[in-house]
Amino acid sequence: MTIISADEILSMEQRYRATFINSVGGFKSLCLIGTISKDGMHNLAVFNSFFHVGANPPLFGLVIRPDSVERHTLDNILATGTFTVNHVNASIYRQAHQTSARYAREQSEFKATHLTPEFTGTCTAPFVKESDVRMSAKLIRRINLDENGTCIIIAVIQEVQLPDDCIGEDGFVDLEKAGTVTCQGLDSYHQTKRLARLSYAKPDKSLTEIPC
Amino acid sequence: MTIISADEILSMEQRYRATFINSVGGFKSLCLIGTISKDGMHNLAVFNSFFHVGANPPLFGLVIRPDSVERHTLDNILATGTFTVNHVNASIYRQAHQTSARYAREQSEFKATHLTPEFTGTCTAPFVKESDVRMSAKLIRRINLDENGTCIIIAVIQEVQLPDDCIGEDGFVDLEKAGTVTCQGLDSYHQTKRLARLSYAKPDKSLTEIPC
Repeated sequence: MTIISADEILSMEQRYRATFINSVGGFKSLCLIGTISKDGMHNLAVFNSFFHVGANPPLFGLVIRPDSVERHTLDNILATGTFTVNHVNASIYRQAHQTSARYAREQSEFKATHLTPEFTGTCTAPFVKESDVRMSAKLIRRINLDENGTCIIIAVIQEVQLPDDCIGEDGFVDLEKAGTVTCQGLDSYHQTKRLARLSYAKPDKSLTEIPC
Repeated sequence: MTIISADEILSMEQRYRATFINSVGGFKSLCLIGTISKDGMHNLAVFNSFFHVGANPPLFGLVIRPDSVERHTLDNILATGTFTVNHVNASIYRQAHQTSARYAREQSEFKATHLTPEFTGTCTAPFVKESDVRMSAKLIRRINLDENGTCIIIAVIQEVQLPDDCIGEDGFVDLEKAGTVTCQGLDSYHQTKRLARLSYAKPDKSLTEIPC
């Protein structure tokens, strides 16, 4: 067992620390955020910071870094109030990773990474055609984190698109069946293998497995 | 492809909607949060909302639900300013799930689920002995989300404990090697299988794989 103190973390070389801290927190939700600028330019960026906030209304959060390529995403979300969330599968994880390159504002990451913008439903932002589980969302508000210049976007889900056979009778969306992958750190991509779905936990009651 | 609108989401039966929205967002970070009350009572609760906020200082966030068993966790964090984050592996995921049962405040989830509190380093809150990757953390601040009564805790990592052979030369923590599992929705637990670690993305440069 290695023990690393706060002082040791703060004295790490910058890139080493970024890799260490980004990877130590666990596996993460992985998605491509699709946006459109006021001028009609498409933008696509990979995010690993989607987190659940509530089911009613259906809210989630996204962490946006202070100055990175994803700033185009933030600018577009603030300008238009809307964006798409597209899950990443094993066929497109390399393209998803490539969207993190620092493309110029006038370059579309869709074009650069050979992913296809698709417009369906009422959302003005582009979906990723090659993604199997997709959502459109509306900006609720932005929370600035003065601690390090990042911000959190709180958004509400507007529409969900997913394969017919991936929703269970109880509403459970089987993302393993849908082929959604997960990630760890800034660059490690993983498929999953279910251990089990477990029944609702109660004191003094044994857990049972829920069939999937 | 099934398309589900905002109106359809809002008209779902409450439990169905909670299952649906909690599971549609992707795979999540899974950890046990260990706390201690002012009176010395140990508490342990499973969380799936750990998210990365920054590497310097090493910040992360946790979403806390409005009224649930995890309220004991929030009370203890607010009272003591400190807590532990313990990764979940395949040997303890059932026990981790069981901590979500509504135990009374005077019951220790450690005792109820046969997990062992361990006190190491400078943190006054208990670690989970059976966990292989562990952190202690200090509360920075609480952000209330008036939209649904949840709150976000922003915290700074104080110490990291992990197996010697799971840190790479570049600082990458190999959580798959450490046996950390991921989860989806409120009750589905998954092991992972790496597709690849990919090199830092640059425009007009091909990605290569980073050996693990």
